[in-house]
Amino acid sequence: VISAPFERAAIVTNTQVTLIQIDNYGPWTVTPTPRRETDLQALQAELYADLSRLIGAEEGYVFFARFDNVVAITNGMDAEALEHLQSTIGNRYPVTVSVSTARAATPATALGEATDALQASGSAQEAARSEAFLGHPDERTHAGDVQLAHFDVVDATKRLTDTVDAFAAFAQVERAHVELLEYAHEAHDALTFFVGGDNFIAVTPDLDRGEFEALIAHVASAAGVELRVGVGRGETAHTAGMTAKHALERCREQDRLVAGDCPAPAEQ
Amino acid sequence: VISAPFERAAIVTNTQVTLIQIDNYGPWTVTPTPRRETDLQALQAELYADLSRLIGAEEGYVFFARFDNVVAITNGMDAEALEHLQSTIGNRYPVTVSVSTARAATPATALGEATDALQASGSAQEAARSEAFLGHPDERTHAGDVQLAHFDVVDATKRLTDTVDAFAAFAQVERAHVELLEYAHEAHDALTFFVGGDNFIAVTPDLDRGEFEALIAHVASAAGVELRVGVGRGETAHTAGMTAKHALERCREQDRLVAGDCPAPAEQ
Amino acid sequence: VISAPFERAAIVTNTQVTLIQIDNYGPWTVTPTPRRETDLQALQAELYADLSRLIGAEEGYVFFARFDNVVAITNGMDAEALEHLQSTIGNRYPVTVSVSTARAATPATALGEATDALQASGSAQEAARSEAFLGHPDERTHAGDVQLAHFDVVDATKRLTDTVDAFAAFAQVERAHVELLEYAHEAHDALTFFVGGDNFIAVTPDLDRGEFEALIAHVASAAGVELRVGVGRGETAHTAGMTAKHALERCREQDRLVAGDCPAPAEQ
Amino acid sequence: VISAPFERAAIVTNTQVTLIQIDNYGPWTVTPTPRRETDLQALQAELYADLSRLIGAEEGYVFFARFDNVVAITNGMDAEALEHLQSTIGNRYPVTVSVSTARAATPATALGEATDALQASGSAQEAARSEAFLGHPDERTHAGDVQLAHFDVVDATKRLTDTVDAFAAFAQVERAHVELLEYAHEAHDALTFFVGGDNFIAVTPDLDRGEFEALIAHVASAAGVELRVGVGRGETAHTAGMTAKHALERCREQDRLVAGDCPAPAEQ
Repeated sequence: VISAPFERAAIVTNTQVTLIQIDNYGPWTVTPTPRRETDLQALQAELYADLSRLIGAEEGYVFFARFDNVVAITNGMDAEALEHLQSTIGNRYPVTVSVSTARAATPATALGEATDALQASGSAQEAARSEAFLGHPDERTHAGDVQLAHFDVVDATKRLTDTVDAFAAFAQVERAHVELLEYAHEAHDALTFFVGGDNFIAVTPDLDRGEFEALIAHVASAAGVELRVGVGRGETAHTAGMTAKHALERCREQDRLVAGDCPAPAEQ
Repeated sequence: VISAPFERAAIVTNTQVTLIQIDNYGPWTVTPTPRRETDLQALQAELYADLSRLIGAEEGYVFFARFDNVVAITNGMDAEALEHLQSTIGNRYPVTVSVSTARAATPATALGEATDALQASGSAQEAARSEAFLGHPDERTHAGDVQLAHFDVVDATKRLTDTVDAFAAFAQVERAHVELLEYAHEAHDALTFFVGGDNFIAVTPDLDRGEFEALIAHVASAAGVELRVGVGRGETAHTAGMTAKHALERCREQDRLVAGDCPAPAEQ
Repeated sequence: VISAPFERAAIVTNTQVTLIQIDNYGPWTVTPTPRRETDLQALQAELYADLSRLIGAEEGYVFFARFDNVVAITNGMDAEALEHLQSTIGNRYPVTVSVSTARAATPATALGEATDALQASGSAQEAARSEAFLGHPDERTHAGDVQLAHFDVVDATKRLTDTVDAFAAFAQVERAHVELLEYAHEAHDALTFFVGGDNFIAVTPDLDRGEFEALIAHVASAAGVELRVGVGRGETAHTAGMTAKHALERCREQDRLVAGDCPAPAEQ
Repeated sequence: VISAPFERAAIVTNTQVTLIQIDNYGPWTVTPTPRRETDLQALQAELYADLSRLIGAEEGYVFFARFDNVVAITNGMDAEALEHLQSTIGNRYPVTVSVSTARAATPATALGEATDALQASGSAQEAARSEAFLGHPDERTHAGDVQLAHFDVVDATKRLTDTVDAFAAFAQVERAHVELLEYAHEAHDALTFFVGGDNFIAVTPDLDRGEFEALIAHVASAAGVELRVGVGRGETAHTAGMTAKHALERCREQDRLVAGDCPAPAEQ
C-alpha cells in the first residue's frame, strides 16, 4: 500500500477496467409493451447490488454509471471470476450481460479498449450477441496499479441537506458531478462516478497534489461546490479506495482540502 | 387517464411527494472506521430496490436521487402504507429512514415543503432524530393529479452505446441530465431524474407541448444531445408513467420528438 | 382482533389461501445442463424474500414450503394485488409463476381447492401453462377469519443451540416439524410450516385449548421435543400472527405451554 | 474430479464445514416487541441468498438449515474469504454472524467440532459474543475431499405436484427429508438438507453403492417415497455437486435409482 502518493516519484498506474453491458436491454424493456418502471428500477438496482457484492468480494470496485452499462475496476480478478459473475447473472435474471476487460496506463484508455472490443463483437441491441466475454483479465497485481480519489462536499450536511430543499441539494451534487467528471476525463483520462450522498470516486492515473487542487478549483468555479479529496494508491481498487477514505477522514479532521496535505499515521 | 395532455384545458396537478432520508447515514458510513465501499453501494442499491418494489406495488414511482435522500411520487399511498415502508426497512437494515410527505400544485413546491418539515424535525446527522414521520399522506386520487414526462436520447444505441466509448456515452447522458434537470426545475418547478440507460423522467406540473419543445431545444443546445419525450397524465405516477411510455413508443415509431404530436390509439 | 380465542363461542375461520407455483421450474433448472446449485438457492431465496415483502405489505403471511410451491395466507388481498405480484416477478426473474387462490372454512380445504384449480389448468412441467391466474381473491375481511398458532421449542437455546451439535439441533427441529405438521393436517386440516430457528406457524381452523395441548403432547411423544404455543385470531394473517406472537411471549414469561392460559393485557 | 465414485478404492473425504450463526437473534426478533413475521422471513431469506452468492462464487455450497444456524461446505475458502463474508454481512444487516470452521474425515464430525468451538466461545443468546471467528479455514484442496449426493423423488411431478394437493406433497417431501437425514446422520455421519422442490443434498463420507441403495430403501419404507440419487466426488462442493447433478440426470434418463449404475460419459 502506498499511502502517501505525493511523496514518491511517479509510478505508472495499470488499471484493469471491465465494462458490463446488459444484452439487448432497450428492446427487452418495451417488449411486448413497456414494462412497469418500478420493476425496471428494482431489476437494475438488484443487478448493481449483486455486482457490488461479487466484485467487492474480489477487492474490486464497481460503479452503476448508466445501470445498463456498468464500469468495474477489476485488478485482482481473473477470467474465471468474471465468467462466474456472467454466469450467475444469467442464471438469476431475465437478462444476460456481456463482459469486456482491458488494462492500460490510464483508466479511460482501458475502458476505451474494452468498449472497442465489445462494439466490434456486435451491437448492444443485437439479439445474436449474448454473453460475449472479451479481453484477458489478469489476476496478477502490483503495488500501485490503481489510484483512486474519494471526493465529498465540504460541510454537505450543513450547507445542503439540512438547509436547501432536497432537489436543490441533488441538483448541486449533480452539477458538481458533471463538471468534475468532464474535466477529469478530458484533462487526465480519469473516470469519475457519483457514489451516493455527496461522494464521488475518480479512478485516475497518477495525478499529483497540484492536479487535484486544480480539479477542486474547477468544480468550485464551474459548479459553486467546494470539494475535498482523499487519494490512495494500491494494488487493487479496494486497497487504494480504503487508503483514500482514510485520507479523506484526516482531511476532514484537519480541515484541509487535499489528502496529500494530511500526514498519514505511521501504520498505514 | 388523460392520454392526450395537450388537447385539454389546463388542469392543475396535485403531486404528492415523499422524501425518504436515511437517518444519520454519513457518520454511520465511517464508524468506527470507513466501511467497505462495495458494501455501501450494495446497501444503497438494495434499499432503493426495496423502495421500488414496495412503492411500485402501490402505483407510485421512486427515484434514487442521492440514494441517502430518495424522492418518491406517492399519490395513492396513505400513512399506513408509508409507515409500513418505514417499519419494514427498520427491521431489515442496519440503518433507519425518516419519511416526510407533502402535496402541492407543483412537484418542486411539494418536495420543498416535505424538506422543510424534515429539516425542522432535526438534522440529517443528529442521532436523536430517528424514523421521523411527517406530513399527511392521502390515498385519495383524482384524474390528472400527476403529470410525468419520459425522455430518452434519439438513436442512443447508434449514436452513443455502439459508437463512442462507454465513458463518453455516460458523460453525455450525465451532461444532458444536469442541463435538463436544472432548466426544468428553474423554469417549471419540475423534478427530473435519470432512470438508467438513456432515460430521464420528469415529474412536472401541467406543461404544454411548446414547453416540452423548449426543454428539448435547451438540452440540444446546452448538452449537444437530442431528446425525445412522451408525456402522460394520470391519477397516480404509475398511470401517468405508463401513458408517457406508450406515447414515447409512438414518438419513436413516428420519428417525432414530442408525444403530443403523436396520435394516441383510441382505446387509451 | 380477538385476542383470547378460547373465551369465545366457536367462530368458523375463513382462510384465503394462495398457492404460488413456479412454472416449468424443474426442466428449467437442468436446461441446457444442470445449473449451479448456489444460483438456484439464491434465486429461490430471493423469490421468497420478494413474496414476503409484497405479501407482508398487504397483511398476509407466506411460507416457503417447497420454494417452487409457496403457500400464502392472503386474506385482505384482492386480484389486483396478486396480479401485480405475478407481473412484477415475471419482469424480474428468469422464471414466471402461476397463482391460484381459494377460500374455505379450513386452511387445508382452501389449499386443496387452489391446487385442484391449478392442476386442472395444466401440469407444473408443461411449457404451455404460464402465468395462470386462478380463483377469485377477495379483499373483504371479517374479524376472526384467520387463526394462527405460533410455536417454539421450550428452552431451545439452552437445550439445543448451546449444547448439542448444530446438525443434531436441526434434526430435532425437523423431526418436531414433521410430526407437528402431519398430526395437525390429519386431525385438524391445519397447515403448519417451519419459519426458522425453532419456530413453527400453523394456520388452523378454530381449535380450542385442549386441541393445542394435544398437539404439543403428540410432538413431545413422537419427537421428544417440548413445544410452547401462542394463538391469535384476526381478520388477516398479520393481525392474527401478531396476537399469537404476543401470546407466545406471555407464555414464555409465565412459563406456560399454551397461550390461552396466559391472561392478555387489557389493551389487546 | 472423480466422477465414478464406486469404481475406486475408498479415499477418505476431508470436508471443511462452516457453521454460520446469527448472533443473539432470538432476543432481537422480539425486542422491543415481536417484529413483523414477513420482515423476519425476508431478512432470513436475503441473508441466505447472500451467503449462497458469496460462497457459491468460491466453489462452496451452503444450506439454510434453521436459517439462524446455516451450514456451509467451504473446501477451497480461506480465512480471508470467510472474514469478508462476516464483515460484509455486518455492514448490511441489522444483525451480525459468528463463523466457525472445522475439517474432518466425516461431515458430521467437522460440524460437531465447529459447533463445539462456537459453544465454547459463548451462548447464541449472549450479547457479549458477537462476530466470533473460529477455526482455521484452509483454501488448499485435494481431489476427492468432498462427496455429495443429490437426491430427488422419482416422478415427483406426476406423483405429487400434479396429483395430490400442495400440502400433501409438501408433507411427503418433509417426511422423506426427516427419514433420510436421520438415517444418513446416524448410520454414516452425513449431513442432509432439503434444497427445494423434491431435492435433497447429502454431504457424505465415501459411501458406496450399497449404502446409497440402503438409504433409498429406508426412505421408501419409512416415508413411502421413492428417491433416486446421483453421487459426485470433487475437491470442492461445487465440483462434487455438479458431478452428482449430471449423474442424477443420467439416472433419470436411464430410469435407474443410483448414479453409480449409470455409465458416465468419457469426458467427465
